[in-house]
Amino acid sequence: MAIVKNEKITSRDEDFAKWYTDIVKQAHLAHYTSVKGCVVFEPYAFAIWENMQATLDKMFKDTGHENLYMPMFIPESLLLKEAEHVEGFAPEAAWVTYGGKNMLEERLAVRPTSETLFCDYYSSIVNSYRDLPKLCNQWCSVVRWEKSTRPFLRTREFLWQEGHTIHETAEEAEAETLRMLNIYKKFFEEYLAIPVLVGKKTEKEKFAGAEYTLSLEALMYDGVSLQSATSHYFGQKFSIPFNVKFVDRNNKLQNVYQTSWGASSRMIGALIMVHGDDNGLVLPPKIAPKQIVIATIRNDENVLKTASELESKLKKCGYRVILDTSDKSAGFKFAEYEMKGVPLRIEIGPRDVANGNVQLARRDNGEKENVKIEDVLNKVPVTLESIQKNMYDKALKHTQERTYTCTDLEEVKKIMNTKPGFIKAMWCGELECELKMKEIRGMKSRCIPFEEEHISDHCIVCGKKAKHMVYWGIQY
Amino acid sequence: MAIVKNEKITSRDEDFAKWYTDIVKQAHLAHYTSVKGCVVFEPYAFAIWENMQATLDKMFKDTGHENLYMPMFIPESLLLKEAEHVEGFAPEAAWVTYGGKNMLEERLAVRPTSETLFCDYYSSIVNSYRDLPKLCNQWCSVVRWEKSTRPFLRTREFLWQEGHTIHETAEEAEAETLRMLNIYKKFFEEYLAIPVLVGKKTEKEKFAGAEYTLSLEALMYDGVSLQSATSHYFGQKFSIPFNVKFVDRNNKLQNVYQTSWGASSRMIGALIMVHGDDNGLVLPPKIAPKQIVIATIRNDENVLKTASELESKLKKCGYRVILDTSDKSAGFKFAEYEMKGVPLRIEIGPRDVANGNVQLARRDNGEKENVKIEDVLNKVPVTLESIQKNMYDKALKHTQERTYTCTDLEEVKKIMNTKPGFIKAMWCGELECELKMKEIRGMKSRCIPFEEEHISDHCIVCGKKAKHMVYWGIQY
Repeated sequence: MAIVKNEKITSRDEDFAKWYTDIVKQAHLAHYTSVKGCVVFEPYAFAIWENMQATLDKMFKDTGHENLYMPMFIPESLLLKEAEHVEGFAPEAAWVTYGGKNMLEERLAVRPTSETLFCDYYSSIVNSYRDLPKLCNQWCSVVRWEKSTRPFLRTREFLWQEGHTIHETAEEAEAETLRMLNIYKKFFEEYLAIPVLVGKKTEKEKFAGAEYTLSLEALMYDGVSLQSATSHYFGQKFSIPFNVKFVDRNNKLQNVYQTSWGASSRMIGALIMVHGDDNGLVLPPKIAPKQIVIATIRNDENVLKTASELESKLKKCGYRVILDTSDKSAGFKFAEYEMKGVPLRIEIGPRDVANGNVQLARRDNGEKENVKIEDVLNKVPVTLESIQKNMYDKALKHTQERTYTCTDLEEVKKIMNTKPGFIKAMWCGELECELKMKEIRGMKSRCIPFEEEHISDHCIVCGKKAKHMVYWGIQY
Repeated sequence: MAIVKNEKITSRDEDFAKWYTDIVKQAHLAHYTSVKGCVVFEPYAFAIWENMQATLDKMFKDTGHENLYMPMFIPESLLLKEAEHVEGFAPEAAWVTYGGKNMLEERLAVRPTSETLFCDYYSSIVNSYRDLPKLCNQWCSVVRWEKSTRPFLRTREFLWQEGHTIHETAEEAEAETLRMLNIYKKFFEEYLAIPVLVGKKTEKEKFAGAEYTLSLEALMYDGVSLQSATSHYFGQKFSIPFNVKFVDRNNKLQNVYQTSWGASSRMIGALIMVHGDDNGLVLPPKIAPKQIVIATIRNDENVLKTASELESKLKKCGYRVILDTSDKSAGFKFAEYEMKGVPLRIEIGPRDVANGNVQLARRDNGEKENVKIEDVLNKVPVTLESIQKNMYDKALKHTQERTYTCTDLEEVKKIMNTKPGFIKAMWCGELECELKMKEIRGMKSRCIPFEEEHISDHCIVCGKKAKHMVYWGIQY
């Protein structure tokens, strides 16, 4: 391994939480502000977000969704219309009570999520089945007044997208719920290089007001899981109280069937915690703001000329390239771009140019290779592809190694206290047993996979007849 | 003229305000919500906004600016740091006072603009002249608790971008202020097809806290002017109270020089009011969500085949095309896309196909043309370009016709009460005379142009020695 440990950050095996905060700071991702739980998304993190956004947005539009923008304020009376929903979100809402010097007649919640606003809008624009489906999405920030916060993982204000769709039939809405889950899955696996579990949340863990929630769960390097995106099926649970009705094909008045689905800036946290190492971020080529850094060593005319020619050739091919010709030392330069997780580094020095070579250094595994200058354009796409694949494979291997099949609570405890991960275990379906599991390091059910394995006949907690195989894990 | 007046909307010469509201509703641009002054940006308006955003964002990035995201909450104490600024914005701030059930120790303003947040951030990340300049921008929504509101023109929450830059020297910051003004000017003229006046705001009209404000002013169809984008030079007015310091090239501690500049969803209002007519929106091709609609009449196999072939050819060339093969009547279909302002309509019916022709209909002037099917791909770019140019020329002619040179207050009154527009008149520089002008239909100074004409030696109000030539006008 050519990579020497970067001393600016704590080792991830030593103190994962501190390692995380160090990277957030040293890679200039987020900056704390005087409002607790609200951070500045610094330009480098925001550039990652913009790439995520562009990719997902295209996937949404390719499947017929349109963007719009809803107000950020929800009148309290509107939030109160669906009982479970308000119970879930009102306790953590930020409330606007004054406009200028005047106290408002009704206080306004800063949106924690926008189901209520979409329902209100849809109820006044939909009349007939001919108006359906409505497939809308918005990119915005939402606010949830959380007690404990952490950059990207849990902040009081965060960036996200929220899709909200309404349909003629339950079947169509359920198909949409699943379709969007699969879009997220594809995005996580193919772009973020993060393997995910998919399945249904238990009643306890579903979204406040949903019939059911489908979820993506990813395992971080430390074995803690992260709920990474969700897709909810609402049935008519909102459309009845909000009176979203249409005249159906039989000329009868009906309530619409509804979904919502979202993914957030938490994905930046996932990227850090799945792929990062002791030298900083490691970004998958498909999402990295810069895919290649050309770093010159001991600049002379030939070095600069070669580097700049290479830069323009690579840019012409569509790569996101940065050229660094500063006179910082090679070690300093390399460490800087390693910290930022740039997937591929091309090193050019006088001896390289004299030999007609450059050095290619991979961020994911530290491998270096001598490449003839004329071969670089052929070598780059292959290497980037190989990095993208290797990152996924590595993360998958890690997830598999940390996925345990258990039939005994003591075993679960031991695992969770030493090398935590996903636990596959049978469950009777009772809330009581779910709460019992929570006593082990706050562990929660992650999801019931679509294809359940049969591990045993008995609930791991109470020993009664098992209903489901469930993935469990401690969570961020 | 082939266009027949659309009966769903009021005539713009009859009642311009009602015409505007009718278009907003009938073209599905904005939808009112139960919170006064907060509207839903419906998908069609949002698609226009996305095109504006993409174009401007590229212009910003091409000139070295980076995007980031600041929190939406500003602690009251932070807002209080610059005296003029707080005086300008605090009276119209929306205040968050509760987080969940707990009253906050300090109330938080929902950002009306983010100078204070950027200063706070910059003060902790800048150390040396080597860190400068910082050229940052963010796309977000802001909130100002306005009394009277109108979709896009003045809403309590609106979408915008705000650029915030800091520099080593005053010269550099002033050059940035002007550079960004010119970027807006280029965008308005070349993309929105809207001619603009540019110049400096008077002391009374400048941004709260700025040294000076540069502004773009456009004239709407009804002769009322719209402040369309602004670029502010702050000097050290914020960097001193916010303590944004750096070690300069002489190793001395200095305060940075600062700018900010913004353009908002108000630009959608400008598009409506400059180009719209009695049949609805008219959108410039460069910004229209769909540039071309292919509308079939009396569908048969040949019509559908020709239309669909044309659609894929045009899409392959990069045009934004919509194909409407519904069985609505031709009149109904045409009216719908005229309402939405689609620049070019291609009509295809059985007789057209039999003759190897299609009809091209321009939205801007209603002209129709028979074009051979094989010529369409050559004809389209020329026509779109001609539409773009014609729209600009028409708007420029209108602005020129409504720009008056005046030396007498009675004359100004008469113009403003009959055919209002921009008034060019001399001014002594005194606030008193500016306020006197305001008595005429609330007229305000628009800007002092960079190249002032000499109209007379005397202030139009008091007759004393004139200091400046000023553009005046009533405003939205």
